[in-house]
Amino acid sequence: MPAPIEVRPVLRTDYDQWRPLWDGYNAFYGRLGETALPESITASTWERFFNPVEPVFALVASSQGKVVGLTHYLFHRSTTKIEPVCYLQDLFTSPEHRGSGVGRALIQGVYAQAREAGTKRVYWQTHTSNSAGRALYDKVAKHLGFIVYSCDPV
Amino acid sequence: MPAPIEVRPVLRTDYDQWRPLWDGYNAFYGRLGETALPESITASTWERFFNPVEPVFALVASSQGKVVGLTHYLFHRSTTKIEPVCYLQDLFTSPEHRGSGVGRALIQGVYAQAREAGTKRVYWQTHTSNSAGRALYDKVAKHLGFIVYSCDPV
Amino acid sequence: MPAPIEVRPVLRTDYDQWRPLWDGYNAFYGRLGETALPESITASTWERFFNPVEPVFALVASSQGKVVGLTHYLFHRSTTKIEPVCYLQDLFTSPEHRGSGVGRALIQGVYAQAREAGTKRVYWQTHTSNSAGRALYDKVAKHLGFIVYSCDPV
Amino acid sequence: MPAPIEVRPVLRTDYDQWRPLWDGYNAFYGRLGETALPESITASTWERFFNPVEPVFALVASSQGKVVGLTHYLFHRSTTKIEPVCYLQDLFTSPEHRGSGVGRALIQGVYAQAREAGTKRVYWQTHTSNSAGRALYDKVAKHLGFIVYSCDPV
Repeated sequence: MPAPIEVRPVLRTDYDQWRPLWDGYNAFYGRLGETALPESITASTWERFFNPVEPVFALVASSQGKVVGLTHYLFHRSTTKIEPVCYLQDLFTSPEHRGSGVGRALIQGVYAQAREAGTKRVYWQTHTSNSAGRALYDKVAKHLGFIVYSCDPV
Repeated sequence: MPAPIEVRPVLRTDYDQWRPLWDGYNAFYGRLGETALPESITASTWERFFNPVEPVFALVASSQGKVVGLTHYLFHRSTTKIEPVCYLQDLFTSPEHRGSGVGRALIQGVYAQAREAGTKRVYWQTHTSNSAGRALYDKVAKHLGFIVYSCDPV
Repeated sequence: MPAPIEVRPVLRTDYDQWRPLWDGYNAFYGRLGETALPESITASTWERFFNPVEPVFALVASSQGKVVGLTHYLFHRSTTKIEPVCYLQDLFTSPEHRGSGVGRALIQGVYAQAREAGTKRVYWQTHTSNSAGRALYDKVAKHLGFIVYSCDPV
Repeated sequence: MPAPIEVRPVLRTDYDQWRPLWDGYNAFYGRLGETALPESITASTWERFFNPVEPVFALVASSQGKVVGLTHYLFHRSTTKIEPVCYLQDLFTSPEHRGSGVGRALIQGVYAQAREAGTKRVYWQTHTSNSAGRALYDKVAKHLGFIVYSCDPV
């Protein structure tokens, strides 16, 4: 029987366990080496989790006292809703805990937070090639055909 | 020579011209009839354009004194940026002014606002089947393979 | 020995007990009768307590399972701080529980929330004639000589 | 006849003229020498003026092309309003331009911004001993007897 997974808001004391997961997540998206995420951004994002003026939040999944997954989400306005929508921006499971329901538990944790906040929509982006992720996402959400365009107009 | 297009922030006095464009945009996405956008949402969104606590904004394109297009955008946090990112949520051109550069001018108007705000990323979603829109978007931005999953976990 | 006072974030299920305290507080400030606070404002404020996009919060004091006091606070920017400041806007104790430490416990509850949020300043306003309140405030904070000017420039 | 005073939103290009006024304002409140406002706070506040996610704003008064006064204001929630309230946090006139209506013009500039934003209340704090400031404030606003308590509960 797999060890139970607890999903809970991140605490400041989780930093040492959260950090390697965050680094692993960024490595997955190629933000490594010369294009690594600057330390100042990690520091700023971490502080925002605890800042009540910033609607940026983190949940962690813990199993047997160890942090094995993370998700970061934030709320923002939408022009077609009165309530905020919830953007699940980051999701990562420790490689040695893949396939044990950590990702699903984290997504459901965000759903629970969104419900409590009166938010009617949770969404996220993934790369079309992320087949492992999509196998899970197709079970808990829908890809309705929307795709993302972006530009860095500096 | 086509009439020049001016892109500028929406004014309260634009309401009567903005409204049919907003209704046309929602019709395009099928928010009509029984699934029409509730009037209370339109009223709330309109007020947010003028509310300094709400980072929700609208630009309109005007040509010969007539409002011929709209774009609504908002800024929200990102976990991988210190600066906010800019989500261009809505874009619509009056059917009789299609193909005259209105959409492009509106997108560039959002880029200019984003630059002034110190924002490094502008993004939007579109349906994969929106070939007319994508013909333009492929010229001013990139689809890097990211797709959207969503769920309404009520 | 007085019953212990627990201070905790408000829950949606507290509404029926929170409401008479809120009405009592507004009566104290003369927002009664023709000048009563409109119901739409109470409804909006209540919803904001549970909306993660809104940095508006409520704590209640409970004693023997009964809600006996409330405090509402919010965080906002300051030009002389990087961190937000905390504005304790409302504080009210049920008349039959005055003098038993409820007000002090609520203020200290806000201090604890502010500390956790990394906020360095908590402040509030009171009327200069509120001698009962000021007897407590002089013990837990300071009046440094600042006074408030206001205008409703409609 | 005195030179006309123009009140307008601050621009990035105003920095060199805004800065000595901001330093003068802080000197007035004794934030000098060892207790000077850290440079990082000035940098952060300046950036917030141009950040659409931050409801922190600045107006400057200019006369004959020279910046002669500043005001910084922000909007925040209130539990007794649906609309945000406007906190005019800072106001300063260049010493050589005192008595020529700069302060009044800046306050009225904030009133105009507040009205446009649908805000019904503008307020500020001053020290009870600031008799020069209060001579003006008594003409454009009211002190209704409210005083400020504060605590830095670190």
